[in-house]
Parts: sequence; C-alpha cells; structure tokens
Amino acid sequence: MKLVTFSAGAEDRVGVVDTGSGVVRDVTGLLPAGTGMLELIRRWDELGPVLADRAGGLDGEPLDSVRLRAPIPEPRRNVFCVGKNYREHVAEFGRSGYDTPGRSQELPAKPILFSKATTAVTGPFDDVDPHREVTTELDYEGELGVIIGRGGRGISRADAFGHVWGYTIINDVTARDLQRDHKQWLLGKSLDTHCPMGPYAVTADEIADVTGLELETSVNGENRQLAMVKDLIFDIPDLIETLSAGITLLAGDIIATGTPAGVGIGFEPPKFLRSGDVVEVSITGLGTLRNRIA
Amino acid sequence: MKLVTFSAGAEDRVGVVDTGSGVVRDVTGLLPAGTGMLELIRRWDELGPVLADRAGGLDGEPLDSVRLRAPIPEPRRNVFCVGKNYREHVAEFGRSGYDTPGRSQELPAKPILFSKATTAVTGPFDDVDPHREVTTELDYEGELGVIIGRGGRGISRADAFGHVWGYTIINDVTARDLQRDHKQWLLGKSLDTHCPMGPYAVTADEIADVTGLELETSVNGENRQLAMVKDLIFDIPDLIETLSAGITLLAGDIIATGTPAGVGIGFEPPKFLRSGDVVEVSITGLGTLRNRIA
Repeated sequence: MKLVTFSAGAEDRVGVVDTGSGVVRDVTGLLPAGTGMLELIRRWDELGPVLADRAGGLDGEPLDSVRLRAPIPEPRRNVFCVGKNYREHVAEFGRSGYDTPGRSQELPAKPILFSKATTAVTGPFDDVDPHREVTTELDYEGELGVIIGRGGRGISRADAFGHVWGYTIINDVTARDLQRDHKQWLLGKSLDTHCPMGPYAVTADEIADVTGLELETSVNGENRQLAMVKDLIFDIPDLIETLSAGITLLAGDIIATGTPAGVGIGFEPPKFLRSGDVVEVSITGLGTLRNRIA
Repeated sequence: MKLVTFSAGAEDRVGVVDTGSGVVRDVTGLLPAGTGMLELIRRWDELGPVLADRAGGLDGEPLDSVRLRAPIPEPRRNVFCVGKNYREHVAEFGRSGYDTPGRSQELPAKPILFSKATTAVTGPFDDVDPHREVTTELDYEGELGVIIGRGGRGISRADAFGHVWGYTIINDVTARDLQRDHKQWLLGKSLDTHCPMGPYAVTADEIADVTGLELETSVNGENRQLAMVKDLIFDIPDLIETLSAGITLLAGDIIATGTPAGVGIGFEPPKFLRSGDVVEVSITGLGTLRNRIA
C-alpha cells in the first residue's frame, strides 16, 4: 500500500494512493478521530486490514490536485541518520576535506549515527530553504528511509525486517560548512526544510527485496547519484540491530540509511546547490522526491 | 514555581512543589484534559497565572510519597546537547583520547551540537541501566538543562532569555566506548535511561541570574565536578542564537548546556561507573538529581 499525508485546509488527511490511476483516496475517516499517519503505523495490525478492505470503495481524487506533506510530517522524535554508509561516498567525503575527523577515506568500522531535528521535515515537492544567512555550502544526499512499525529493544539481525513497517525517500540536505565547523553534525543536518520526505510511505509488503532497489539522484536533470541498496556497508538489519541494542525503537521511527557517491562535495570544485536548482531523488517502487531550492 | 511530573498508577500528574514544606500539590485538574507538562509549557502565558492563583489552595501530599518522573518524561523530540562547553573539560576530554576528532585540546570555535534520543529520558531518582551488553565504559556528565518556552527562529542573543521557560538538571550519561567508536555521538549518548532529568522544572522567574548558579556532581559522595554556569564557553544566549538561526525551536525543547571538568575519563586511569554507584548532580536552586547505576 502507498500511503500519503496531504493537507486539506488547515487539516492533515491520510490517503491511500493508486499510482496506476493517479488517484488518492482519503482514509482519514477510517482512523481514530484526530489521529494521522503515526497512529496508523502504531496500530497497523488492526488498521491495516481495515484500509485494505475498505479504501478501494472510497471516492478518489486526482493525486496531483492535493498538496502532499511528508508522509510523517511531524515525527515523534529526530530522524535517525547514518553517515558514510556507501563505499564510494566514503572515499569522496574523505577526499573533500569536509569530514570530521580529518580526511579519512577508511571505511567505518561501526555505523556512524546522528540525527536530523523534526522541524527539518518538509513535503516531497516543497521548496528547500537555502538559509543563506547561515550557510553558503548547501548539498543534497538522496537516501532510502526505513520506517519502523513494531518497536522494541534488542532486535536481532534475523528479526529486523519484522520491525520494518515500510519505506520512503529522504533527501538528507546538508549545510556542509556547518557540518564541518560544528564537528558534530546535528546543526548542519537540521535546518528547517532540510529533510524532504516522501512522496509515499510504502508498506514493506510491496517491496519483495529491498536490497534490489535502485536509488538515483539528479540535479536539474543531470544524474548525480546512482546506487543499489545492496551496496550499503551496514545493511538495514545491521542498523536496526545496532540502534536497538540500547535504544528502544518506537513505531514511526525513521532511519535514513545513508547516501551513495555523487554528492556536491564529491566534485572538484564542489557543486553546491543554488537557488532555482531542482533536486530529484527516485527509488524503485517508492516514487520520486522533487524539491526546488528557493 | 517548581513543577514536577509524577506518576499515580498508570497516569502522569503534574504537580507544584513547595520545597519548604516538602509538599506537592496536584494541579493536573487545572490543565486541559489529557495533557501534561508539555502543554502547560506551551500555554504558559495562559495557564501559568491560573496555577499561581489556584495551586496554593489545593490539597498537598508529601513530595517523598510520590514517584517523580522526569519533568518532561517524553520530550517531543531529541534533547539538544552541547559538547566541550567548559574550558577545563575540553582539556580533559582532549587528553583522554576519547574525543572525535583526535586528541584536540583546542577550544571549539563554534558550539558542538548533538542530540540524545527521547527514550533515554528517565526520572530524577530512577536507576540507570548500565547496558553491560553494549558498553563497558559508562560515564556521567552533570549539566544545566534549559527548557524553551516561546519557540521561534532567528532568536537573537538579546532576546534569548525571553524564550527560556525554565531550567532543570540533566545527567548526560555517556557510553564512552560507543561515543568514540561510532564517531558521531548520538548512539553513545542515547541508551535507554541515559538522560536522567529533574527533579524539578523550575520557572525562569525563580532564577535571578542563571550565570550565578553552581553545578556540583558527586559519585558515592566523592566530589567530581564543580563549576559555575558563568564559565560556559558558549553561554545560553549563544546557544539559543546558534540553534535557532536555522532551526525553529519549539515550546518544550530542552538544551543540555554541556558538562564541566571532572567526568570519569578525566582521571587516569578513568573512573567509569560501576553497578551500585550513586551519581548526584546538584545546581543552586534546582535541587539534586540522584541516580543509582543498576
């Protein structure tokens, strides 16, 4: 199932999308009053079957007539993120001089984990604020986002996919100068609108083999990133096992799994984002995230 | 006003504490139904006067008869934290070899900002889980916590204190091996129960001059940390200005302002925490946080 959050006036609605016909069906009425995507994910065992049974009978409207928000517009806490999780990206980041510490091109021995603040989340087709007053080195990072369903602690590799509710696309937009100058990455990763997400939250049952998905990023139509999810250094089970060893994961938690080679600082000279640039991130079966730099 | 969150059965209650008489008055009935400390902070302009007016007339119960939770038991997002924000701590951390990058004893040119996951938050007198399965190098960091009232972006130094709702104490418990090995600090800072907070959320009007507060940490009664808030390298207005330059701060956001010298890795050999150790962090006017390592 492909789910979206969209706005109707001041209200958020949850919809089921039929990409074939380009129609979205508003299923908000099937959820507990006053709730949205987070509660749907939390109570998926109960509500998923209701949607599967009844969404098809509801009236639809053209998907392109509604304003999509991020599937989870206000996550219950910061987005978990992974740094340096594709081989060639480790090399380009090392060469660039923006890494902390130093210019290491060594593969990380353990996952590098940081977070993006909730207020960075923005819609799949919304403009990205360049924040010219605080950064002059804006960069993109196309990533696969994993959405946790059943939470828990001490989740083993073997059980990890049983805790994955679904997937989405994330652009881990980064202010490189802040990332470098503040040493820890929170600030450089968390500026408002710097976490475009969506367009859909796609349930795991639609993805036969997540490692077979291909990720592609372009800027103004120029291909920049192309990679397979199977090329992750620390794969999804690794990440879930590592995080949950000491942190209780919650339903609705989001893990941005890392970006492949081809980010702006991978070029010499770096290709930073400028106003008017359009960044597109596509992943097989998950659609395309498309954001213009304001 | 000194506010607490305490549990009564499965429910959380909000209380106003009179430390003189050791009494807590349950003011939950004065708040919108089903809400707690976060909503109280968000609507403080309206609800603060109601509490000031009516709390004193309510029945009290002995403070030591209730089980205190963290004042904000489930923050709406990760706790903002600051690394290396006291001079002598920068030196000890640099010497220790646990810092990333390298062994730098240089003062940071910009605030080092990271976060602790929400699920790390635990009560002011609760046990800390040593997580022996993932860390053997458990350490403490006594810190002043700032609680944001009125949110916003682009908050200037001059306006910063107008956005501070109040203060609390935080022990930024750290798994040093994870902090070092994972390069970015999120994981080493976020294990369940590794963010003891409280005992009170103290409104800003009770603190005439926050820079005059003294912070003291002891382990099993042995003094370990002693510092004045005025010794922060980046002071509270700096931190609020830096964070809010690109991140919209929200009512209820918490900023742990950094720890002074005297943490376990500051000693040779390091004094890591062991089961049964009791860590106490006291700050003038804010009470004492006291947690045993389980």
